[in-house]
Amino acid sequence: MQLLIANKNYSSWSMRPWLVLKAFDLPFEEVMIAFSAQPHGGEFKQKVLSINPNGKVPVLLDDGQMIWDSLAICEYLAEKFPQLPLWPADLALRIRARCISAEMHSGFMCLRSQCGMNIRADLKALGAKLWAEDEGLCKDVARIEQIWTSRPSLDRFLCGAFSIADAFYAPVVMRLKTYGLPVSDSAQRYMALMMAYPAVQQWVQSAVAEPMRIGYLEADR
Amino acid sequence: MQLLIANKNYSSWSMRPWLVLKAFDLPFEEVMIAFSAQPHGGEFKQKVLSINPNGKVPVLLDDGQMIWDSLAICEYLAEKFPQLPLWPADLALRIRARCISAEMHSGFMCLRSQCGMNIRADLKALGAKLWAEDEGLCKDVARIEQIWTSRPSLDRFLCGAFSIADAFYAPVVMRLKTYGLPVSDSAQRYMALMMAYPAVQQWVQSAVAEPMRIGYLEADR
Repeated sequence: MQLLIANKNYSSWSMRPWLVLKAFDLPFEEVMIAFSAQPHGGEFKQKVLSINPNGKVPVLLDDGQMIWDSLAICEYLAEKFPQLPLWPADLALRIRARCISAEMHSGFMCLRSQCGMNIRADLKALGAKLWAEDEGLCKDVARIEQIWTSRPSLDRFLCGAFSIADAFYAPVVMRLKTYGLPVSDSAQRYMALMMAYPAVQQWVQSAVAEPMRIGYLEADR
Repeated sequence: MQLLIANKNYSSWSMRPWLVLKAFDLPFEEVMIAFSAQPHGGEFKQKVLSINPNGKVPVLLDDGQMIWDSLAICEYLAEKFPQLPLWPADLALRIRARCISAEMHSGFMCLRSQCGMNIRADLKALGAKLWAEDEGLCKDVARIEQIWTSRPSLDRFLCGAFSIADAFYAPVVMRLKTYGLPVSDSAQRYMALMMAYPAVQQWVQSAVAEPMRIGYLEADR
């Protein structure tokens, strides 16, 4: 399997399937296609378009198949490795995991548009300003709180052991951290658990070490 | 099974799992909770919040489980009825179906925000104005064209027989129709196929017959 991703510092969509592959020790080759200086056109788009007509990453290539959406990649992997609990084995937990992952996939537009993932940055001043001004952002974070704090055990992940659901919320943890958005003690415990998880640590270390700074993805653009 | 939905004229999210249940003849009870005059608060929110802390429909209730996201509902049904091709049986088609469904779930923000579903309305004048002015909308429709016109057979649905993928794009067909957005012949053929599909016809007939007009969901609000 080959997973095409973009810069680890910025690409929240890439982070999700990468974490799933790492968390479950699935062998894969990582192919990083760095973002170009311009959001449209540029070498990044050209390279990705030659593989995926949608022009986006992540893309999983496996057995002649091209899977181009992060949630569909996770479902593909769950189907390919049914012996592994990529989704929780328990039905009620699996339902919860699928619901919160799909909710992440379709929602939280304010958080996603206002607080782009930028792992190595400290944007707490901007975060405080947004927090005071942006009602939609506050609502998004309130719903995330609700999801995180209703996890079955406060000492574990969203549906027990690390699953696809946590991979979907990992970039949210990064955003809340970068922008210093205020969350409850219970949510902070979840964030600490996530930051200590080996696959997450590996991604974050690579993100911090990346030399490329992509202007249009920086908050001070 | 009980499916909680909102007004058929407006609720694009409700339409998706409802179509899947109808298309595959799965027995269910439909519970319609009408939108209130105000988007926040009101009886609608109260009723939904008493069942789903997220305050949204659709919700599927089955065997003591509450499944609150339209894509997760479809995955739940696909798992519950493995003998039925809710997703295509063929691996390559199933990958395609999951990718385009998840892409719909996460994307097309301009189309979704600018062209709210309003089945019985004729908003072609507004559609022409948006088409001339909104580059994001044109890009969304271009990608939808790409997805629709790359279907394996022009006389059939997106992945062969009607599947979850078509249920996900049914509300898009409604929007393109209401707003009169220009699409290719191939895309029009797909739209005609969709409009002639019995489950879709049933939904549209109910939508048109609904007496309630919800001000904030109308384009002339």
